[in-house]
Amino acid sequence: MTMEQTTPLGPGSDLSQVFELAQQLRVDAVRASTAAGSGHPTSSMSAADLMAVLMARHLRYDWNAPDDPAGDHLIFSKGHASPLLYAMFKAAGVVSDDELMTSYRRFDRRLQGHPTPVLPWVDVATGSLGQGIAYGVGIALAARELDGQPSRVWVLCGDSEMTEGSVWEALDRAGRHRLGNFVAVIDVNRLGQSGPTELEWDTGTYARRAEAFGCRAIVVDGHDLEAVDDALATAADGRAPTVVVARTVKGRGVAEVADQEGWHGKPLPEDMATRAVAELGGVRDLRVRGPRPAEAAPRAARSDDALVLPRFDVGDEVATRVAFGRTLVALGSRRDIVALDAEVGNSTHAEDFKKTYPERFFQAYIAEQQMIAEAVGMAVRGYRPYATTFAAFLTRAHDFIRMAAVSRIDMALCGTHSGVEIGADGPSQMGLEDLAMMRAVRGSTVLYPSDATSAAALTSAMADLEGISYLRTTRGAYPVLYGDDEEFPVGGSKTLRSGEDDVVTLVGAGVTLHECLAAAEQLAEEGIEARVIDLYSVKPIDSGTLARAARDTGALVVAEDHHPEGGIGEAVLSALAAAGGHPAFTHLAATGLPGSGTTDELLEAAGVSAAHIAAAAHGLVKR
Amino acid sequence: MTMEQTTPLGPGSDLSQVFELAQQLRVDAVRASTAAGSGHPTSSMSAADLMAVLMARHLRYDWNAPDDPAGDHLIFSKGHASPLLYAMFKAAGVVSDDELMTSYRRFDRRLQGHPTPVLPWVDVATGSLGQGIAYGVGIALAARELDGQPSRVWVLCGDSEMTEGSVWEALDRAGRHRLGNFVAVIDVNRLGQSGPTELEWDTGTYARRAEAFGCRAIVVDGHDLEAVDDALATAADGRAPTVVVARTVKGRGVAEVADQEGWHGKPLPEDMATRAVAELGGVRDLRVRGPRPAEAAPRAARSDDALVLPRFDVGDEVATRVAFGRTLVALGSRRDIVALDAEVGNSTHAEDFKKTYPERFFQAYIAEQQMIAEAVGMAVRGYRPYATTFAAFLTRAHDFIRMAAVSRIDMALCGTHSGVEIGADGPSQMGLEDLAMMRAVRGSTVLYPSDATSAAALTSAMADLEGISYLRTTRGAYPVLYGDDEEFPVGGSKTLRSGEDDVVTLVGAGVTLHECLAAAEQLAEEGIEARVIDLYSVKPIDSGTLARAARDTGALVVAEDHHPEGGIGEAVLSALAAAGGHPAFTHLAATGLPGSGTTDELLEAAGVSAAHIAAAAHGLVKR
Repeated sequence: MTMEQTTPLGPGSDLSQVFELAQQLRVDAVRASTAAGSGHPTSSMSAADLMAVLMARHLRYDWNAPDDPAGDHLIFSKGHASPLLYAMFKAAGVVSDDELMTSYRRFDRRLQGHPTPVLPWVDVATGSLGQGIAYGVGIALAARELDGQPSRVWVLCGDSEMTEGSVWEALDRAGRHRLGNFVAVIDVNRLGQSGPTELEWDTGTYARRAEAFGCRAIVVDGHDLEAVDDALATAADGRAPTVVVARTVKGRGVAEVADQEGWHGKPLPEDMATRAVAELGGVRDLRVRGPRPAEAAPRAARSDDALVLPRFDVGDEVATRVAFGRTLVALGSRRDIVALDAEVGNSTHAEDFKKTYPERFFQAYIAEQQMIAEAVGMAVRGYRPYATTFAAFLTRAHDFIRMAAVSRIDMALCGTHSGVEIGADGPSQMGLEDLAMMRAVRGSTVLYPSDATSAAALTSAMADLEGISYLRTTRGAYPVLYGDDEEFPVGGSKTLRSGEDDVVTLVGAGVTLHECLAAAEQLAEEGIEARVIDLYSVKPIDSGTLARAARDTGALVVAEDHHPEGGIGEAVLSALAAAGGHPAFTHLAATGLPGSGTTDELLEAAGVSAAHIAAAAHGLVKR
Repeated sequence: MTMEQTTPLGPGSDLSQVFELAQQLRVDAVRASTAAGSGHPTSSMSAADLMAVLMARHLRYDWNAPDDPAGDHLIFSKGHASPLLYAMFKAAGVVSDDELMTSYRRFDRRLQGHPTPVLPWVDVATGSLGQGIAYGVGIALAARELDGQPSRVWVLCGDSEMTEGSVWEALDRAGRHRLGNFVAVIDVNRLGQSGPTELEWDTGTYARRAEAFGCRAIVVDGHDLEAVDDALATAADGRAPTVVVARTVKGRGVAEVADQEGWHGKPLPEDMATRAVAELGGVRDLRVRGPRPAEAAPRAARSDDALVLPRFDVGDEVATRVAFGRTLVALGSRRDIVALDAEVGNSTHAEDFKKTYPERFFQAYIAEQQMIAEAVGMAVRGYRPYATTFAAFLTRAHDFIRMAAVSRIDMALCGTHSGVEIGADGPSQMGLEDLAMMRAVRGSTVLYPSDATSAAALTSAMADLEGISYLRTTRGAYPVLYGDDEEFPVGGSKTLRSGEDDVVTLVGAGVTLHECLAAAEQLAEEGIEARVIDLYSVKPIDSGTLARAARDTGALVVAEDHHPEGGIGEAVLSALAAAGGHPAFTHLAATGLPGSGTTDELLEAAGVSAAHIAAAAHGLVKR
């Protein structure tokens, strides 16, 4: 059966026409994945009815104006169902059948295995499960709280991903904020990648969980178009965040694979695909024109106030986290700046922002994954988020940060309480792997100021950096080193001591810069002149200054309050290798398992104190 | 008031005596933190009644035999309440008042700011919130499923940490496994670090959530000793995993701080501490001897079968993940080996183990944090876990891996689908930062085999390594390079090509080793002899062989299917810097944002293909 179409399907179409659309989506999902030789057709077929009803009747979206601030958002949290999503794009008329059949999963094409924002209709990259729903909450929050726009967020979730804790962090926030503009549709198709899901078709349990987390739950047969239509209409009433729990059949519509194990992530072989397309009624070319977005609320003209950075007096002892907090408040004059906290804002000083700009401060409580997801959601809506917690606890959100880089999100992260420097709280609170984590993020910027002036300058610079930028701050208060007039370009460094007689270079950042300065004093008393470099920009790194120091002094000591791997020492080695410098080299970093103690005791025990740095310099100079 | 004590408090003591114990715990928590000048007394006081009842009447534990396999486990998921935990140790008679007053939070002492297993009564380090409860589930699972022992697990949770998604992953597993030997006690004291918690005293919501996740919930006034006693008795009946939701008051017992904001993580000043101790009835020296453990079930004598590693024929194409799976099955002859999967076992080949040893295979579904937590729990009970998922998705559990290192856990992790090599699925599924993450884990071992023979040998070696070991495997099938007789010591490398005329060294691992071999062939045709090193052990690293190659050939190219930071290139640079080698150096790594494509297309685009390696070698040799 084929269908002639004169006007596009839309809100006025009857459900028999929507059924034809659903079958078309199935057919195209099968065709695209078979043509590509990989993909997830069965995971697409289970959700085809849900998505057909959504796109024809409920999704308020202008496919030719994906940036309309009043438009809805559609997120495939089950990113592996990309054949379905791309089939929807074809039905919307924005992707051709030819592109679908020849580009899906091919090199250098936009129809990738899992959706990413190289496509204008995709807000966030998905494919790491349990994340799309969290981003959706962030986007809904931004649309309502920051923009005051009528746009809504629809998230298609797989049932397998509901075991990710991040899902419950997200629904908790949706419930708490009463996000009536948020709808998650769970495609309960019973089968995961390697076998049945934990809850199989126990839709009641999904519903109870959603309700316990403050959402409205609607259980529905995901292949009963009328019931789905009713459910989505209710979900769209704006009264409560809603979870539509849809019982579906994986591979629905194709008898050979429907509800069968062993078909996850497998395209149908050619012959099966041919039979499947026939069973589904053949190839169609229906077009959809769903509901249009409402009129966008007038966006307040952005009239930023002038930025006045805090100033610090050289010699005063000020913690970089304090400087961060004060600068964040100053940045608040820019109305696109938002701050997020994981319930440690009095430690990170993100709380300072809350006092001045409560309407742009978001408390994620102790849920670091959700904090990053909300930051991403806000970035999607055009804001510049600053998300903050202890450096150690950012590891909790590593996968979200990784995926945010795939989404090419611009956002600022700040991790406080770095290194053994923190003292008595002990190793659980010490960020000792954050530089390795953040350096390895694609396109990231990693900054690590040693004093308040540079911390303020770098915090401010992050508001305009591309990609994910990271500021590492320190718990304790240390002397302000720089006056107001100093500039701190990203990718630069500061040489704090240098002379013609330098025989060794000491490189530090954060607390170890102060230890390097003390070591240089001590060495000077012994007649050994040391150059000291403040490596405040770890990525990008000032290769030129480092290579020059290597040439001039022939010996480098790098000291860092971080594990030896992936941090400043290796960043310096990479820079020197690229620049061709070959100094004698000693790398001091925190080894061993620290415990509690004072800062001085712990820096000494970790081997990164001034005494260790001076001894290392001695060792190199003697050679 | 003080109390004379002739016999220790215990199950037979009446609740008025237990109240005195609770007051003693509060007094000691106040004294210890004031003496230390830091700590969390108010978070301790809220839970003192709960813990007094537990230790006197319910916790079956021999404080002098913490390794008794039948003994209960007590985990402070709210690790910041360490003053309470250590006060309990004093009451149990295993820590002296002197130690409590002079060692808490001091350098090089065992009573650290947050508990770690340097104390024999602490199973796992806590202090990163939402983790203790997850480890507890793992321990309970191991005790029941693997050991068949009567020991139970009691976890004290804070209310703030219930926003962590990992908590719900854990309770889901507890519910699903019907872990009647698991009890979580939530200390709902209403106040977090920086202000009121999300749910404050809404104990009903906590209870509904716990029930929705399959646990029994009991709401109780946490300061009503009789009610607490009843609740814990019910919880201990073994019928269901239980969550005791206890409404408490932070700072309970000291009017100046009770239910007051601004007292989180702050010791009382001396004068306030003096008043507090007086208000709490003065210093006591009560001793507790709670219920003893039941007789341990006889542990089956471990009679491991002989280990027979799988063999592979040189030249056959076998994926390292396949070799991993087959070796894991072979290792199953050792009865301490357990395997864990996050629902991708058909991809990682962990599933192979399930077929042979279903009783030692644990499906965590898509919940990587919980998978790692269960692995830790099993390691606590003496097992050697192998936990596996995609390399990319191990980032989801980074904070758990970090904390497992603080706990000094011995366990094996395997991450498959590393790098752009995976092809069509796209960047969300590509592990490109796992080497940086795993190298920076304290005390870790990082292995990256290039062929099936070495993958089998290294998988086997991991069964006896200390600390956290990581095996990085590859999706595709590549030729077997080594015969059965080869050995692959951890910290070693293999030189696959070398001669007196070598003018450049090519270093690779995994897929790039095969690219290096192809590049060497190509270079040889052009008359350029290249040495090729298989760097299968990334940490520890074979500095000697690398330094020798640097000396012999003067030029090194390192190619890796990983981001440039923190991976093999920087590991080699660190090794050479330590060994004093200064070759000309080119580092090829995956830069840019990959999409879908074939393996060859993506390796080429990432700049790590044989052609790029050969070109880099040319560049160095020409210099």
